[in-house]
Amino acid sequence: MPDAGRLASEFDLIRRHFSRPAPGAALGVGDDAALLRPQAGMELAVSTDLLLEGRHFLPGADPRRLGHKALAVNLSDMAAMGAAPRWATLGLALPHADDAWLAAFADGFYAMAARHGVDLVGGDTTRGPLAISVTILGEVPAGLALLRGGAVPGDDIWVSGALGGAALALARPDLEDIADRLHAPEPRVELGERLRGLASAAIDVSDGFAQDLGHILERSGVGAVVEFDALPAPEAVKREAPEVRIRCTLAGGDDYELVFTAPQAHRADIERLSAELGLPLSRVGSVQPGERLLVLDGGRQPMAVPRGFDHFPS
Amino acid sequence: MPDAGRLASEFDLIRRHFSRPAPGAALGVGDDAALLRPQAGMELAVSTDLLLEGRHFLPGADPRRLGHKALAVNLSDMAAMGAAPRWATLGLALPHADDAWLAAFADGFYAMAARHGVDLVGGDTTRGPLAISVTILGEVPAGLALLRGGAVPGDDIWVSGALGGAALALARPDLEDIADRLHAPEPRVELGERLRGLASAAIDVSDGFAQDLGHILERSGVGAVVEFDALPAPEAVKREAPEVRIRCTLAGGDDYELVFTAPQAHRADIERLSAELGLPLSRVGSVQPGERLLVLDGGRQPMAVPRGFDHFPS
Repeated sequence: MPDAGRLASEFDLIRRHFSRPAPGAALGVGDDAALLRPQAGMELAVSTDLLLEGRHFLPGADPRRLGHKALAVNLSDMAAMGAAPRWATLGLALPHADDAWLAAFADGFYAMAARHGVDLVGGDTTRGPLAISVTILGEVPAGLALLRGGAVPGDDIWVSGALGGAALALARPDLEDIADRLHAPEPRVELGERLRGLASAAIDVSDGFAQDLGHILERSGVGAVVEFDALPAPEAVKREAPEVRIRCTLAGGDDYELVFTAPQAHRADIERLSAELGLPLSRVGSVQPGERLLVLDGGRQPMAVPRGFDHFPS
Repeated sequence: MPDAGRLASEFDLIRRHFSRPAPGAALGVGDDAALLRPQAGMELAVSTDLLLEGRHFLPGADPRRLGHKALAVNLSDMAAMGAAPRWATLGLALPHADDAWLAAFADGFYAMAARHGVDLVGGDTTRGPLAISVTILGEVPAGLALLRGGAVPGDDIWVSGALGGAALALARPDLEDIADRLHAPEPRVELGERLRGLASAAIDVSDGFAQDLGHILERSGVGAVVEFDALPAPEAVKREAPEVRIRCTLAGGDDYELVFTAPQAHRADIERLSAELGLPLSRVGSVQPGERLLVLDGGRQPMAVPRGFDHFPS
């Protein structure tokens, strides 16, 4: 097959770097589509993210961390739904076919995928300004997904891990102890799955705590009171001047922690879960009637709430 | 909720243009992920494409046609699997938030989606060089998907519609009668579904007939003989000089026709299907032992086969 055998380099590249086995798929990379067999009784959770150089990551970013992060932000969406991630597809635009870059990116991507039981089952690669589009698919037992709209007055508001580290790392690249918060976020996948039946609503913090909690409130038709001093933040953030600390904690994006609401009756269960997972879960406020988000300072006075990240600032 | 109520314009944009109802989904756009309920006994076919301005379409391209085409190329992957398309997600990078552009793009996208029963269930929008990433999900009865690897010696090779129109339209924007072949391709979705049980292998022509047929041959471990004069081409292509005609027909990408193989015993069924769908299906050659793709001219002499489109030419 002398002619069709002269395979275009695109196919070689894809094949070499993104064709590892997909044991959880009926058919993986290499045909017109992958074939998946969702389990009976499961709903399929699907989410897409698009990451661009210069907007979501800096030019020259380490490709291994980029592979990690591109999948991590999608895994975080699965966590926020309480879904078990299963499969992913990858769309990749690259300015040139750089073998070393692809190898490192693939290593970062597959390492994160392996940790969470995800198979890369398809994709598309083309030449262009660096852009990464990941679509993730997960499974959740029918009716048990964590939605944004389930919060009711009286529920507690909880936050996992710590807030503001990623935003501070972006502003202060010299602070090495929080660099991973920005470049290698840890999606709270196991927490999300374990919150099924415990949480009444959930979202992941991608655009900032206030804005993302705002989505829960809007969707649930409720308000909230949050105590600023209860919000968890890394030491590096706590050391900053109040204005920076407030901005990072309330409006810092990219933390990929979970914000969730839960009935007060579940407090003990959630604290046990925190201990079991070795992951701090902080109770930071409560859901209220109305539609206002009030953030109170140490003197219980309302604070001005900075706005979250906007991909299209006006 | 005075602060969280100041919604970022990104969310407004997405909500306004890409939040039409998704009746075929358990949960559509607006949460951390969509929720789908695949039917029992079905496999899920998943495919992703990434389209970039300047590479897959010209700067200034009509946004309505772009919306049509972005979904069409993915629908074509479903057609090539024999899958019924059901759901799609959209990742969109835009240089600026242009309301008229978004409205036209969404109209083109949703019109194509409605014709094929597809729900847009999720997505991501950001600022950047114009890029469109669509992931499509479809259903196919377990075990009945059309794969690339099923061709066996003796099978006929068939092509739907006509080849080379898109490539000629790219080279000759003055030829208005074939412009739609490039800008508004018609994915052969119904044909794909109806070929279940008839075809032994299938692929869609995105990178050129010879290259795409080559994928079937390679995957099936077979060769083929194709008669050039049997290959269907639009009149506009037939009017071109032989060199252009050969190049467009054998190596022209973007036609989104189906190339499929089928046992000879299915000839009558396939001809009936052609009549029923009102879609020409041309028998262009046969699968052979070996691994060579021979294309014969009118004198039954082997032709040099031009190479297909390479996204990373070396």
